[in-house]
Amino acid sequence: MELIQGGVCASKGFLAGAVHCGVRKSQSKLDLAVIYSKKPCAAAAVYTTNQVKADCLKLTKEHLSNGKAQAIICNSGNANACAPFGKENALKEAVACAKLTQLDTEDVIVASTGVIGQTLPIEAIEQGAMQIELKENNSLEAAQAIMTTDTKTKSCAVSFELDGIRVHLGGICKGSGMIHPNMGTMLAFITSDVDIESSLLEKALQEITKKTFNRISVDGDTSTNDMCVVLANGMAKNKLIQTEGEAYDTLKKALHTVMENLAIQIASDGEGASRLLSVTVYDAQSEKQAEKLAKSVASSTLFKAAMFGSDANWGRVLCAMGYSQAAFDPEIVDVTFASKFGKIQVCQSGKALDFDEEQAKKILQTDSVQVLIDLHQGDEVVTCWGCDLTYDYVKINGDYRT
Amino acid sequence: MELIQGGVCASKGFLAGAVHCGVRKSQSKLDLAVIYSKKPCAAAAVYTTNQVKADCLKLTKEHLSNGKAQAIICNSGNANACAPFGKENALKEAVACAKLTQLDTEDVIVASTGVIGQTLPIEAIEQGAMQIELKENNSLEAAQAIMTTDTKTKSCAVSFELDGIRVHLGGICKGSGMIHPNMGTMLAFITSDVDIESSLLEKALQEITKKTFNRISVDGDTSTNDMCVVLANGMAKNKLIQTEGEAYDTLKKALHTVMENLAIQIASDGEGASRLLSVTVYDAQSEKQAEKLAKSVASSTLFKAAMFGSDANWGRVLCAMGYSQAAFDPEIVDVTFASKFGKIQVCQSGKALDFDEEQAKKILQTDSVQVLIDLHQGDEVVTCWGCDLTYDYVKINGDYRT
Repeated sequence: MELIQGGVCASKGFLAGAVHCGVRKSQSKLDLAVIYSKKPCAAAAVYTTNQVKADCLKLTKEHLSNGKAQAIICNSGNANACAPFGKENALKEAVACAKLTQLDTEDVIVASTGVIGQTLPIEAIEQGAMQIELKENNSLEAAQAIMTTDTKTKSCAVSFELDGIRVHLGGICKGSGMIHPNMGTMLAFITSDVDIESSLLEKALQEITKKTFNRISVDGDTSTNDMCVVLANGMAKNKLIQTEGEAYDTLKKALHTVMENLAIQIASDGEGASRLLSVTVYDAQSEKQAEKLAKSVASSTLFKAAMFGSDANWGRVLCAMGYSQAAFDPEIVDVTFASKFGKIQVCQSGKALDFDEEQAKKILQTDSVQVLIDLHQGDEVVTCWGCDLTYDYVKINGDYRT
Repeated sequence: MELIQGGVCASKGFLAGAVHCGVRKSQSKLDLAVIYSKKPCAAAAVYTTNQVKADCLKLTKEHLSNGKAQAIICNSGNANACAPFGKENALKEAVACAKLTQLDTEDVIVASTGVIGQTLPIEAIEQGAMQIELKENNSLEAAQAIMTTDTKTKSCAVSFELDGIRVHLGGICKGSGMIHPNMGTMLAFITSDVDIESSLLEKALQEITKKTFNRISVDGDTSTNDMCVVLANGMAKNKLIQTEGEAYDTLKKALHTVMENLAIQIASDGEGASRLLSVTVYDAQSEKQAEKLAKSVASSTLFKAAMFGSDANWGRVLCAMGYSQAAFDPEIVDVTFASKFGKIQVCQSGKALDFDEEQAKKILQTDSVQVLIDLHQGDEVVTCWGCDLTYDYVKINGDYRT
């Protein structure tokens, strides 16, 4: 398996395009994207567990009930959640995409991201959709159009072999704030030219979501619009995957690679973030225990603020583990901080080590920091990802709507 | 029942004193307090649910196993949690207080607050304790000595009658960061001259903790050192309260008043906070449902940042309710913002109202803001308290230890 360029257009038969239609004020910001497959796709999706769900999600769920889809339309700047005429406008957005792509409305997936509670400017979207030019190798435009407070486009793709056939799988996503997924996440669109039954595609997606997107946190807020969609159009002409087995496992591995890569890009570009935090719990009794502990540390407001200040305040690591609801023995825990600038153990058997504070600061002053926690209780290992809490997070969210 | 001055010295027979002993660097900052009762007290406490517990908590639990105590010693600046020699040093701190007060060590309660993971400078505490002068009407000194990043001392007391006898109950506390109590909280010391059996005192304390300290949040981080203690020395000479009934209910009401008042002071002076947020859920089906919803809103990082910016971003209220794990019907929810500057409804039946943004901003630009949420599902009402998320929170916690 090799990493390649191309995002959602890395797979055969997928086109993409975007325009600035006017949902966002800035003329230079693309705000409406369409992703289209030349052939019908097996399709699967995971959605937010937030009880308050955007209308576009409810519509997409209906459209995916047959496991098939062929296009995605997505606007940024307005979430179409708790908004007047939400249901009607979600449907109109699907119709606009169907018109552009000459598909049945039921084959269109609709996603929205942005402010909650405002009426979607549907005329702008309807007119904008008709201006979209769908092109090959055009993933970047779509990735730009779905960004909100993201500072970077997020994209990943791989190429691999199934039964001697070259297959592709790639995706784009957006994250930034309101990121504490409890299912899929924010928005992620993944395409593949693999031939697979949609029930198996869904199984793989659900399993891998738990280990990737559900292991990142920016601010503990689970959005109303989270959605991760996979479309597979079969144009690679591999033998249709109908059962679990070697081909399914290979595909799962590729999907895991792409989804983990995208998830880390989201954590790394969390709202206002200056560093990625990777928290790994080693030697745990169970995966569940390790995950709860790692996630609690990666989500701790206090620990995230300490990381912003490059302060090796490991007491907050133990504190966050202590309220994680996962049992462990605080008396035998070791904690180490690491980065490309080195490695320093700060806590042994639950007690302070007399470490060099200056060296620790140096290690923490970089864009990617690892927190290594050893429980000495078993052999499970889990990593969760987060980011630091900065002035910019407060600034961005203190006045998001203006 | 009337509010009075006097804090922990408002009750008959309670003395207090404090010194700067050197745990804190600043010479002008008191860092060691003792609270002492002339007579033995019925005593009860609630502790953090964090699995990582400071050694002073473990010792205090032992000392309170007989329901009796007569003095409290508390240092700020060092939590004595995950610290070398933690157990020995907690005991030495109790011994120092016993020496000063001529009590048995078992009658002393020990509390610490500050940095986790550093060795307690026990000699400074031992020497400092002997310098403490215990005086009447001296609650303020004790309240100052237990502060960490608190900006204000926190104190409340009431006077009321039991069977025609005048009784007093008062307390002090400290809060600021790492505040998301899951039992009692941070540190709160409450005294009374009421005569009551310790088992009943404990029952009242536990019930009221759930409705007061457990309903505030500053940052979602539950500390390793949370403790709330009540001492009652019986010097008011009321008829001993041995069973539930009218006198017990009156006492509970007084305890509730003082604890709720202290809890609100903590939320209001949350680390870096510029405003208190009171989130009230009306017309809920159950107290539990209302509490989960109110707490989720009061704890939402995104909503707290919006409040810092006086941004009436009610979508984040619904979003936080949606991931609270408490079921409700988003389609019939109403949301109103209020303060001393007025009241404005922003959401009706789960959808945006066309409200005046300027007026909303004016209402939110003050030191105390109410969020009123109506579920239209029953008749339970619960309020939880929090504060906004500011640049100062990030600043304080980005470099807490230096």
